Amino acid sequence: MNEVLAGLVDVERTDGGVTLTRQLYDQLRATMLSGAWPPDHRLPSSRDLARQLGVSRNTVSGVIDQLAMEGYLDVAQGRRPTVAASAATKLVGGNAVARHARKPRYTSRWAERLRKADWPFQEGPARPLAPAHADARTFPHDVWARCLRRAARHAPRGAAALNRMSLRAALLRHLVEHRGVHAEARQIIILPSAQSAIELTARMLLNAGDIAWVESPGYGGARAAMEAAGAEVRGVPLDRNGLAWNGRRDRPRLIFVTPSHQHPTGRLMPINRRRELLRFADEAGATVIEDDYDSEIHYDGRPVAALQGLDATGRVFYVGTFSKSTFADIRCGYVIVPPDLAELFETAQRHSGQIMPAPVQDALAEFIDDGHFAAHIRKMTRIYRARRDRLVQALSAAAGAHLTLEPPAGGVQLLAHLDARLDDRTVAARLAAAGVTARPLSPHFTGAIGGQGLFLGFAAWNEPEIDAAAATIGRVLGDMSGPAGKRRRKA
Amino acid sequence: MNEVLAGLVDVERTDGGVTLTRQLYDQLRATMLSGAWPPDHRLPSSRDLARQLGVSRNTVSGVIDQLAMEGYLDVAQGRRPTVAASAATKLVGGNAVARHARKPRYTSRWAERLRKADWPFQEGPARPLAPAHADARTFPHDVWARCLRRAARHAPRGAAALNRMSLRAALLRHLVEHRGVHAEARQIIILPSAQSAIELTARMLLNAGDIAWVESPGYGGARAAMEAAGAEVRGVPLDRNGLAWNGRRDRPRLIFVTPSHQHPTGRLMPINRRRELLRFADEAGATVIEDDYDSEIHYDGRPVAALQGLDATGRVFYVGTFSKSTFADIRCGYVIVPPDLAELFETAQRHSGQIMPAPVQDALAEFIDDGHFAAHIRKMTRIYRARRDRLVQALSAAAGAHLTLEPPAGGVQLLAHLDARLDDRTVAARLAAAGVTARPLSPHFTGAIGGQGLFLGFAAWNEPEIDAAAATIGRVLGDMSGPAGKRRRKA
Repeated sequence: MNEVLAGLVDVERTDGGVTLTRQLYDQLRATMLSGAWPPDHRLPSSRDLARQLGVSRNTVSGVIDQLAMEGYLDVAQGRRPTVAASAATKLVGGNAVARHARKPRYTSRWAERLRKADWPFQEGPARPLAPAHADARTFPHDVWARCLRRAARHAPRGAAALNRMSLRAALLRHLVEHRGVHAEARQIIILPSAQSAIELTARMLLNAGDIAWVESPGYGGARAAMEAAGAEVRGVPLDRNGLAWNGRRDRPRLIFVTPSHQHPTGRLMPINRRRELLRFADEAGATVIEDDYDSEIHYDGRPVAALQGLDATGRVFYVGTFSKSTFADIRCGYVIVPPDLAELFETAQRHSGQIMPAPVQDALAEFIDDGHFAAHIRKMTRIYRARRDRLVQALSAAAGAHLTLEPPAGGVQLLAHLDARLDDRTVAARLAAAGVTARPLSPHFTGAIGGQGLFLGFAAWNEPEIDAAAATIGRVLGDMSGPAGKRRRKA
Repeated sequence: MNEVLAGLVDVERTDGGVTLTRQLYDQLRATMLSGAWPPDHRLPSSRDLARQLGVSRNTVSGVIDQLAMEGYLDVAQGRRPTVAASAATKLVGGNAVARHARKPRYTSRWAERLRKADWPFQEGPARPLAPAHADARTFPHDVWARCLRRAARHAPRGAAALNRMSLRAALLRHLVEHRGVHAEARQIIILPSAQSAIELTARMLLNAGDIAWVESPGYGGARAAMEAAGAEVRGVPLDRNGLAWNGRRDRPRLIFVTPSHQHPTGRLMPINRRRELLRFADEAGATVIEDDYDSEIHYDGRPVAALQGLDATGRVFYVGTFSKSTFADIRCGYVIVPPDLAELFETAQRHSGQIMPAPVQDALAEFIDDGHFAAHIRKMTRIYRARRDRLVQALSAAAGAHLTLEPPAGGVQLLAHLDARLDDRTVAARLAAAGVTARPLSPHFTGAIGGQGLFLGFAAWNEPEIDAAAATIGRVLGDMSGPAGKRRRKA
């Protein structure tokens, strides 16, 4: 081994199948990047290098040419390669994290708003009774996997549309029949989640400083999306019919509502309130986002038809998702936009990449068209209803003295109002320590906090899990409310 | 049939399997929405309705209760249901498009910028020689479909990570070996496309009014993303080593470069220019986006290692995509972000839904780990090299007098400089009419237009398609440059 190369470059014929060319290239490059050789340092000739390393001269020449092309070496006809001046400075190494940490990072106001947003709520692992989850364990993953395979095998060989007509048509049939939606297929924008749909819509419709109304309590993701868009977000309280804006003087650009199963209370906005809302929006020049996130799952009576179907003014953007009716990781939501904005929303999708892969869209279309979707909803509605009833029963028995339940007519979660003397964040923290996930109600308020409660999911958890969690809730609440609990809280 | 209901409500026992309940509900609701009944109009009792329609009283009562719950009907013990006042106004109908068109739609400045952006360039159908396409016809769709099926069957039953460790690890191994990238797996953010990665990064790093540099000519999608973020985008000219910013006084927040195969010229930025760029960025406090969109496909010499691997300051965001190395509709791109921003980028993904479905990520990981990806790249590199050579040969033969070719060392496309007397948009329009897609060079410039040319893809088209397209180009250019062509242009 030549002394210039000793300890720096060596090649090994049995080095895990890495070619000699690759080994030589990597080692020479690493040596130059390490700064071990001064500028204009002269390497052995390719003939000498080949002999010293026991490899063919072709191999060495190829590597030298490559390094010259990349600017690491200077080569000239008949001369030995020399280390290029610019390649002789140590650049790699050091601790990138440590080096960066010393300089403040410039980020956008949007990024700063995300940094400060409290959404997604931190609630630890998805344990009973985490809300917002459908039961992924009962989903027919095999059927779904077969649909995916078929779709991928028959994928278009040219460029696929962003929003596949297969899924738009299947979804529209479903929504017209089950949700009373009025739309053409081209108005349906397929996105990776309902949150994505809300974020994209907010970004398309809101400028910094615009007023946006959200339900209070309401869905944190909507508030966060509007705040990130720079809007001034105001919480509007609820009565038993949902959003109650009577007497307000401010006029919003955007109103976000969950009229069918209000999030988190589960309340239904009846037809007269819906019409008042549409009339108000029209007068105020406001746009409405209707988030219909889990209306397919309905137990008592039939699901209530969508606000969008009542709207003749193009003011309602209808948001939906498959994450509650199938499972969260299917990653498919959508927004139905007014006809005049369909093309612009597709441009926005193209820009931002808020796009679902074609095979996933086609597979979902087949899953719907072949009846698997409707069958799954029927099956899960039966199962979830039983779980809802079980949770209501178990909580009433174990913690009825401390909780007032608001059992919903549908959906995957339930709000339990807490005795006002208890702080719901403290309760949630105690429950987390005891192995139960319960989301506190208070972070759902925008503006004044109007109550304490626990937002609990029942759909993703089976009866024994529900019973155990309810018992834990009863124990923890009893402990916190009883003399021992009071002592502990004073301590 | 009772005269009140005649012509409005009827049920049919064999109506395509739609239940009687559903029929009755839909018809009553539609009748009320049509405004056919005045407020407080009294319906027959449920007993009478049941008898008139020949259905059970339970069916009728269920429907009445549902409509009452939704607010369409008022019901009271022992009285006939009446049409709620608010339900008696005609709301559905009219033409939403026409009605909307009369009112100006309020949209955000971001939406307005998208509306004005010229990207994506309009170039009609994906015919030969449309650039930017890999060949989806030669992709092993069956293998890919099997990977997808397996991944979906073994999908996690709990919540999946946004960025799957399976794909992060497989991708990192690939990038470290083939691209010289330095990173930890958690720095890799998996997104639906390179464009999505550029858009998200621009949105995280740019505020309105910030200066951003792009290559001129350069990739239109990057310019559009930065303009949409509100940045002041400035084109920086190229020399034969890529971005040439010497002598400029302005200082950018962000610099977008394609150093390995410059888009659209195919030029390589050598190591010394790379280092100068990193040094300049560090001094200027600028961030660099390195878009390494098609570097896996390399013909002459080895692919050049990434800029990101040379950077020790956390200034380089490395963007890549599978759309050139597999096919466009696989919908997978990524950005490697500095370690201190990894978590914030995941929050942004959660907000915007720029997320790839877990089975697609897992399938891609398997596709890489099992060697299918490397095998496909090897195969396509052989095929694409032959196509590049064929296009160079065919164009030289058919149109050598009018074109100066810049054959790239890799990638899927080639820039042909046009005789300056020819307008490239006019040429592209003529070619489109003759069945050939050629993207004009001039829209790739930001600021002054520095030349006319045709940006042509060779990867997605087989030899006969390439030959035919080259012959068409020769004919059209000959026609436009010859006496007949000149006459026609003057006319």
